[in-house]
Amino acid sequence: MVQSEFDLIRRYLASRPTQRADVLLGIGDDCALLRVPQDAALAVTLDTLVAGIHFASDADPVGIGHKSLAVNLSDLAAMGAVPAWATLALTLPESDESWLAAFCEGFFALAGQFQVQLVGGDTTHGPLSISVQAHGFVPGHQALRRDGANPGDLIFVTGSPGDAGMALAILQGRLTPPSDSEQATYLQTRLDKPTPRIRQGLELRGLASAAIDISDGLAQDLGHILESSGLGASLQVDQLPYSPALATYADTAIAMALAGGDDYELCFTAPPAQVERILDLAAGWDCACTQIGVIETELGLRHLRADGTVYQPVRLGYDHFA
Amino acid sequence: MVQSEFDLIRRYLASRPTQRADVLLGIGDDCALLRVPQDAALAVTLDTLVAGIHFASDADPVGIGHKSLAVNLSDLAAMGAVPAWATLALTLPESDESWLAAFCEGFFALAGQFQVQLVGGDTTHGPLSISVQAHGFVPGHQALRRDGANPGDLIFVTGSPGDAGMALAILQGRLTPPSDSEQATYLQTRLDKPTPRIRQGLELRGLASAAIDISDGLAQDLGHILESSGLGASLQVDQLPYSPALATYADTAIAMALAGGDDYELCFTAPPAQVERILDLAAGWDCACTQIGVIETELGLRHLRADGTVYQPVRLGYDHFA
Repeated sequence: MVQSEFDLIRRYLASRPTQRADVLLGIGDDCALLRVPQDAALAVTLDTLVAGIHFASDADPVGIGHKSLAVNLSDLAAMGAVPAWATLALTLPESDESWLAAFCEGFFALAGQFQVQLVGGDTTHGPLSISVQAHGFVPGHQALRRDGANPGDLIFVTGSPGDAGMALAILQGRLTPPSDSEQATYLQTRLDKPTPRIRQGLELRGLASAAIDISDGLAQDLGHILESSGLGASLQVDQLPYSPALATYADTAIAMALAGGDDYELCFTAPPAQVERILDLAAGWDCACTQIGVIETELGLRHLRADGTVYQPVRLGYDHFA
Repeated sequence: MVQSEFDLIRRYLASRPTQRADVLLGIGDDCALLRVPQDAALAVTLDTLVAGIHFASDADPVGIGHKSLAVNLSDLAAMGAVPAWATLALTLPESDESWLAAFCEGFFALAGQFQVQLVGGDTTHGPLSISVQAHGFVPGHQALRRDGANPGDLIFVTGSPGDAGMALAILQGRLTPPSDSEQATYLQTRLDKPTPRIRQGLELRGLASAAIDISDGLAQDLGHILESSGLGASLQVDQLPYSPALATYADTAIAMALAGGDDYELCFTAPPAQVERILDLAAGWDCACTQIGVIETELGLRHLRADGTVYQPVRLGYDHFA
């Protein structure tokens, strides 16, 4: 099938259900024209997924479509921003209409869920790669930055980190899958279809002192908060929340929860005075919210077991060029 | 050399001279936080350059850095927007510090020229590819859209279209280079280092009725204005402005000026009442501004010679998937 770039874009990308009033001009001109609310800062974030690096070339395109947007919405969530628009740079080895249709199915299902409108894009010919930029709004003084943690703040994590890292380890043959097939499916879904914690980020505005999303692994991403805030922390590794699937791996679970990447959960800090309010809100969330440590003035990250002994982490987070 | 992604980004991308007051938070958090002026719409545009498709894998990285930003600034120019910020998704086959340094030299030289600050990015491992999103401001009612042309409007083009297409044809061995080596160098420079017509776009606010930048070829891009405006046009092909280098190719020059892509000049329309004002302004530009045709109600694009006969175009613009 030979089809022009313009037809491809027009058919699959331009006319989707989400139409926002703040889009003055969408796809089809030299630029999109967009209206940012007067009281808000514009939050932008950009992530690339490359075939063979971030996903297998033959991976389900519905999942790729979902994940390429989800990882960016996760960054908005970690900033406390409400999502608005996305742009998409899609590089395809061939003009494969069924692949594109499936990719769009995943992308636009998630976009619709968060009222995100695709406002621009570029489709090029080349090795399979997807860059998405997400745009959202947050009042500047309420943004959940990395540098706002204070000594004595408690450290929380949403969901059950480590699931996605475990799924990847299984996929790569480094670990054996759980014998329970439902648990195996659960882990795979957590890798393929991460849930951006948008609601959580919005509700944490004015309550959390710092936040980050866990893409490189909990320990490494918490390390970014510590570095930006000029502080250290103690983590209670036996308080780490595990999914039942991850729990079957015993001690490997700790290492994976600390260092497995691709979770897209939020790690955040909050002063003790806000904890009750946060836990009240979290009771309404569709994910766990677990206190796992405390911010300290002493630099560095200390991993402690329940008996007070030091836990020695076995692996650090994912790093492309390492 | 093994170097972590974080170090790469920090060293080359994060601390550059252009620091804008409207950047509340730049590179280094989950999102950048940006302030859009209250009276302006945000204009955004995204373009990808892929090695082996848009440039040779061994092309000069300084030029690639320049062009990856220039093609996006050109889209802002075509909208009448003033540039503000850029984001960069850079996919590199290996951690090559000298390549990255040269790429940054080209990218940031152009960014500095237009006070553009890099506010976000993602560096990934994979086949060489660069996606840049440019962000600018334009009052919504002054934006130079594609759909604003009216019957009787005159059609103009900046610069001398066809030079970049000729350089590509020479590079690919389809045509022989000019015997004059200065002319050969000139053509190559027009392909490698296009000049975004930012000043021209800004000065055309309120004067031009429609505008587009010439990335796919003059005839094809003018066709987008006609299609969006629901109109047609006559082009006087013997009025097409040629560079001295292109003029040496006689009749091939017409075809190249009409259909050669990658020029990043502006094609715009304006009502006759504005022509005197536009030509006054254009006298101060560092590029030509030439009237080449007229908008008509009859659909389609008619190419006419000076003697009134019809010119039959020989090749249409570049299309990735064709």
